[in-house]
Amino acid sequence: MESAIIAIGDEILIGQIHNTNAVWIAQQLNELGVRVVEMVAIADEKHAIHATLDRFLGKYGLLVMTGGLGPTGDDITKQSLAEYFNSKLVAHPETLDRITARFRERGWRLSGSNIRQADVPEGCRVLMNDHGTAPGMWFEKDGTILVSLPGIPYEMEGLMNDHVLPGIRERVTVPHVVHRTIMTQGVPESFLASMLRNWEQALPDCLKLAYLPRPGIVRLRLSAYGKCAAIAELLLKENIDKLLDIIPQHVFALEEIPLEMALGNLLKERGLTLATAESCTGGTVASMITSIPGSSGYFSGSIVAYHNRIKTEQLGVEPEILERHGAVSREVAEEMAAGVRERFGTDTAIAISGIAGPSGGTEEKPVGTTWICVAFGDNKHSEQFRFVGNRERVIAWASNSAMQLMRRLILETL
Amino acid sequence: MESAIIAIGDEILIGQIHNTNAVWIAQQLNELGVRVVEMVAIADEKHAIHATLDRFLGKYGLLVMTGGLGPTGDDITKQSLAEYFNSKLVAHPETLDRITARFRERGWRLSGSNIRQADVPEGCRVLMNDHGTAPGMWFEKDGTILVSLPGIPYEMEGLMNDHVLPGIRERVTVPHVVHRTIMTQGVPESFLASMLRNWEQALPDCLKLAYLPRPGIVRLRLSAYGKCAAIAELLLKENIDKLLDIIPQHVFALEEIPLEMALGNLLKERGLTLATAESCTGGTVASMITSIPGSSGYFSGSIVAYHNRIKTEQLGVEPEILERHGAVSREVAEEMAAGVRERFGTDTAIAISGIAGPSGGTEEKPVGTTWICVAFGDNKHSEQFRFVGNRERVIAWASNSAMQLMRRLILETL
Repeated sequence: MESAIIAIGDEILIGQIHNTNAVWIAQQLNELGVRVVEMVAIADEKHAIHATLDRFLGKYGLLVMTGGLGPTGDDITKQSLAEYFNSKLVAHPETLDRITARFRERGWRLSGSNIRQADVPEGCRVLMNDHGTAPGMWFEKDGTILVSLPGIPYEMEGLMNDHVLPGIRERVTVPHVVHRTIMTQGVPESFLASMLRNWEQALPDCLKLAYLPRPGIVRLRLSAYGKCAAIAELLLKENIDKLLDIIPQHVFALEEIPLEMALGNLLKERGLTLATAESCTGGTVASMITSIPGSSGYFSGSIVAYHNRIKTEQLGVEPEILERHGAVSREVAEEMAAGVRERFGTDTAIAISGIAGPSGGTEEKPVGTTWICVAFGDNKHSEQFRFVGNRERVIAWASNSAMQLMRRLILETL
Repeated sequence: MESAIIAIGDEILIGQIHNTNAVWIAQQLNELGVRVVEMVAIADEKHAIHATLDRFLGKYGLLVMTGGLGPTGDDITKQSLAEYFNSKLVAHPETLDRITARFRERGWRLSGSNIRQADVPEGCRVLMNDHGTAPGMWFEKDGTILVSLPGIPYEMEGLMNDHVLPGIRERVTVPHVVHRTIMTQGVPESFLASMLRNWEQALPDCLKLAYLPRPGIVRLRLSAYGKCAAIAELLLKENIDKLLDIIPQHVFALEEIPLEMALGNLLKERGLTLATAESCTGGTVASMITSIPGSSGYFSGSIVAYHNRIKTEQLGVEPEILERHGAVSREVAEEMAAGVRERFGTDTAIAISGIAGPSGGTEEKPVGTTWICVAFGDNKHSEQFRFVGNRERVIAWASNSAMQLMRRLILETL
């Protein structure tokens, strides 16, 4: 099956927002073996929507359209689709009930524009939106499936996962492609590529490798093309096992989960609790860890000691040690870890002190210099890093490195 | 002048990279008053390139094409353009000299594929690339200017700045569009639209409004079309002033900056310091505030009290109050704010306690229920919210609401 992704919205065309929806949708469709042949972004204008449908209907098996379903005046996708399919807008009772119930629950007043959100072109299949108010829509014509989804990424992803991807999976019979994701931390893409060169060159022709980097994290996607499922699985397993022998310390998961979830799963499995003491990361590790539902089962809390005075008063770091070694030092990171563990009474602790930049660097300790200490039982591990890049990157690298060090210390200790 | 942006490359269509080039180019063109009507991403395939040119040549004044100019086999843009314009590839002597000199300087060996980088379709205007090896190309046909640029962002931006934007600026006389962004917090898009309906309907025809929502934040983009700069500015100012009278409490900036920067700027301006005590947001407010360079000037730190025991031991919340009112209550939020302010010795404090979900809700306090207390001097403000959506949204709404409440308390107090 071939497909096109259509984004509707002036905000994309003036460069105000990135079309992250298209990237996410393309990834999902590719995993199903649906090839994305074109991505387009067009204006909130009826004639632009109609011209694009004229061009794509009957040409591609699937069109995924996002945007223009909001309650405001510039949202005209629904009207345009109704006209295109010679249909009229009618209220979808189930959606209207939900919107009404939702508003009543919260004591909000229902306006005309809220009610109109329940309208859909007559005859389309309505995709119930459990993540917001605007329903998704599914049309079929001339051998093409057209789905129209809200532009808000969270709602779009919810509707794709709940309805569109399962629906498409039913239509695509042979799994032409089987993907596996290996999550790695701690090696930039180009270094990882050097480390894996021989392994990659020895892969059978039907396996293809892709590097998908994020700050501090590289996802490796290994795809088996054109084989039956059993053989694909076998080839993937064999080659992933070889990969694990080359970079065991950098792999944190063999499925697409974030590092904070991999660490959380490990803590939960082992019945351990964690606290963090953060300086340059400013609470980012705590925020990442608590983004996972159920993290209250293993995470006690954090002290963000952004000022040195707080490091002393709240974490018990000796002023003399701060003076002698500086805040970004092994000694301070270790005292921070010990301090938060003692005060919070946890089994494990992460401490981070570094220079996120853009200012604050010196010749001896340039921007990016970071000390991380992880502690568990009588064991601790401290390490200095020199992260490269802007403030955001340094914080992301430091946070991810700390969580991976913590994982490794637990695995080595228990 | 109207334009389209064409990206060539399979890596975009499989969702491996974000098409950041299109965003940057759109911003630059919009500033010149060149409207971007379509953005497309297509495969590295001759027929796809030719079909797109068939569709766009003669339709738009400008086409900016990126990608497919590299030295490897899958880069076929140049050949496709030469064929399309019935031309042949010839070496561009000046570019070849540069490439040769560059390689000689570094002691690298020049390969056939490097030499072929100096080839261009005969008759095109060559845009010298001072930032890399592949030259840009400028074609004109049927009233359309077509420029082809490398896909590497740094080289593309260099060629745009050096050649394309100056060339276009000569052709475009009047700046047709002026944009202003108004940043709001605390009102979902549909409510905001109701509140602003009369104001929006009274806008002159040349002003267009767009709603750009994110969790807890709605950006309003007001654009003036087809007026000279002075009149556009005047119309925008007049109507933004009216808007400020309608929703003064929800606007936090009249430029595109995040709320954490608006709050940081205010603290810096007034010479105040801040600490946070966070439960359900798990350090997200601290992490957002410290994402801003220079935040160490006003932010002391945070206590993330995820467990109730930590609220008592680290923030001094009385166990009896926790017992009687529950962790998600006005009383606990107020004690958390007082506790962190006293311990950290700051002028202001934010405290947040809520139920982020998906579990933990009760009938009386459903998921999303959140108490926020902001404190400054002898003043404090506490408010209960019922945020809607998944864990990520509740955390984002709570964090943004807390920062906006803090801003308002400072503005009301000082």
